[in-house]
Amino acid sequence: MEKPFYAGKKLGILGGGQLGRMLIQAAIDYDVHISILDPNPQAPCHAYAHTFTTGSLTDYDTVMAFGADLDLLTIEIENVNTEALEALQAQGKEVFPDPKTVRMIQDKREQKQFYARHDLPTSPFVLTDNRAAVLAEKARMPLVQKLGKAGYDGRGVKVLKNEADLAEAFDAPSLLEDFVPFEKEIAVIVARNPQGETAVFPTVEMVFDPVLNLVDYLFAPAQLSQAQVEAATAIALRLVDKLDYVGLLAVEMFALKDGQIWINEIAPRPHNSGHFSIKACGTSQYEQHLRAILGLPMGDTRLLSPAAMVNLLGAPDHRGPARYEGIEDILAIPGVYPHLYGKSETKPGRKMGHVTILGEDLPALTQKIEQVKSSIQVKSLPAAP
Amino acid sequence: MEKPFYAGKKLGILGGGQLGRMLIQAAIDYDVHISILDPNPQAPCHAYAHTFTTGSLTDYDTVMAFGADLDLLTIEIENVNTEALEALQAQGKEVFPDPKTVRMIQDKREQKQFYARHDLPTSPFVLTDNRAAVLAEKARMPLVQKLGKAGYDGRGVKVLKNEADLAEAFDAPSLLEDFVPFEKEIAVIVARNPQGETAVFPTVEMVFDPVLNLVDYLFAPAQLSQAQVEAATAIALRLVDKLDYVGLLAVEMFALKDGQIWINEIAPRPHNSGHFSIKACGTSQYEQHLRAILGLPMGDTRLLSPAAMVNLLGAPDHRGPARYEGIEDILAIPGVYPHLYGKSETKPGRKMGHVTILGEDLPALTQKIEQVKSSIQVKSLPAAP
Repeated sequence: MEKPFYAGKKLGILGGGQLGRMLIQAAIDYDVHISILDPNPQAPCHAYAHTFTTGSLTDYDTVMAFGADLDLLTIEIENVNTEALEALQAQGKEVFPDPKTVRMIQDKREQKQFYARHDLPTSPFVLTDNRAAVLAEKARMPLVQKLGKAGYDGRGVKVLKNEADLAEAFDAPSLLEDFVPFEKEIAVIVARNPQGETAVFPTVEMVFDPVLNLVDYLFAPAQLSQAQVEAATAIALRLVDKLDYVGLLAVEMFALKDGQIWINEIAPRPHNSGHFSIKACGTSQYEQHLRAILGLPMGDTRLLSPAAMVNLLGAPDHRGPARYEGIEDILAIPGVYPHLYGKSETKPGRKMGHVTILGEDLPALTQKIEQVKSSIQVKSLPAAP
Repeated sequence: MEKPFYAGKKLGILGGGQLGRMLIQAAIDYDVHISILDPNPQAPCHAYAHTFTTGSLTDYDTVMAFGADLDLLTIEIENVNTEALEALQAQGKEVFPDPKTVRMIQDKREQKQFYARHDLPTSPFVLTDNRAAVLAEKARMPLVQKLGKAGYDGRGVKVLKNEADLAEAFDAPSLLEDFVPFEKEIAVIVARNPQGETAVFPTVEMVFDPVLNLVDYLFAPAQLSQAQVEAATAIALRLVDKLDYVGLLAVEMFALKDGQIWINEIAPRPHNSGHFSIKACGTSQYEQHLRAILGLPMGDTRLLSPAAMVNLLGAPDHRGPARYEGIEDILAIPGVYPHLYGKSETKPGRKMGHVTILGEDLPALTQKIEQVKSSIQVKSLPAAP
């Protein structure tokens, strides 16, 4: 008899950051046994897992040793050793999402070619192997150059608008995309279980910090036409179908002025753009991911309230133990909920937590977003006297 | 400078059961350091606390030693050593709710006299010291006899309807109440912070299992007149005001046929009747308790969706490692969310978990409640072959 999920089934998560931390919060309700692997012994998950192993996520032997005793493995970060995950899968362990899919997504060039192969809408592109190849495309500027690998949270991405930018282009295998004259950036989170059942979360609209190139805030439902929402949802469903995907997939997309929806990129895991679901939906993205990888029915993704999410980023010039200046003030605003990630030190621009905001409509949310943003700052604690 | 709650402030919880477990889930978002004391080394909290101490909650020295290193103490069960908590308070530690209040609530006779003293509506009663004194009240039958201390989940309570019941009356200091011809049992959860700010959750209506004398299911909002809801809310607010209370207080009440609301009893902690708030309100009862004892502003208690809660009780004749038979079936019902408590063994009638149900209205909820109740049973796992 297969071990039921609540009877000591051992789930291993590669990565012990905030996504793993919130996944543990959800897993407690399902009484799943959780093991975490993370290189940082003080990672956000360290106090909450049944077992916590300090080690590299990209080292084959470390991942193999971590998985030896587990029944099921998943990830909360893409940058993991997928060869080890495949070997564990070959041993008969369940690994979701499939390591082959994770490997494909790790490489933005592969991702992009996958869209093209399956007629999934995305921006026109070429693949370039070095800076010289980029220069040859200068007539197509403005362009966006993305390193095939190792890009994360805006790193490994350059916007090339003029000759000066071109001189700074990466001299490495890249994806070179036409700059998309988008109206909005949106995201959809979709989940699929091994039985093929799917569920799509409400579409969110993201507003970026132009300096840090990180999401400044987002809100749901997105301000889109019904046709655009349906197009975004259909793209997400087509993606998980074509990928034969199991687990949670975050799909970042562009909404163009002419109404088209194009895929920007995807992430094979819970995602920043899905945090709002913890407070605003019956099923959070974390519970949904668990349901999917445990082979359970998908949960209801209906929005119970319009919601917004503001990232709490480390303030410029502050490094060290974090102080959430103004947190009492934002807690006094009705419908404002902090989620602190427990990172031991703040750094400029580091994701230290997020705030979910519930409100009756977008104007109410917008007012609270501004209040929150003007009231809280993540600084470092003054040194002890 | 006082230690901010997120900067390693050490919160100790007396009791490591399901209420502590759900309190930890909420505390993770506030990055509070949690220590648990519980006599059972496999208590539901054991894997999730920063420190877990196995020891008696009623032993003075054990509680003193547990509290020595902590900044703030609270409880998730009433049956604790309040003398030790008072001594820790005298040392300058924060202890919420106040140990004096916990001690008063521990004794149902004291509780009842408190209501009488403050003109809080409750059933007529007398205090009796032994069975002979109970017999002397036989003309007032039907009566409810409650032991002053040690009653919990229906234990220590007898309904006295006839001579045969009288012969079985407890021969110990008791509270003897007139049987209340109530129409409904309801509950209100209220919270108050040290600044005196209060917040009241939506009123819930409880339906009891007549055999086990435990809540079978409950739903919110209760089917009451606006005047009854206002009366229940006013009683809860008057209670926390008169008690100068800090933390979460659960108030179980009777709604009488004539519209009156009477207090049944109170609990100085998160409560079974507040579990629905995890999924159905922006602020859960657990987050609210934390906000209160940390001196933070009270959270919004608005109901985002009508909700119901079904306790998952151990099936008769089943003892041993638990099997949640039919859990996949109930997960397929939209808006159904399990919360398993991770208790190592099931026993007949033991609270093993609960299920929250979201639905658009009471008829929709009622239908799902029946589906859930007829689909899931907590049995023991078959012995390994």
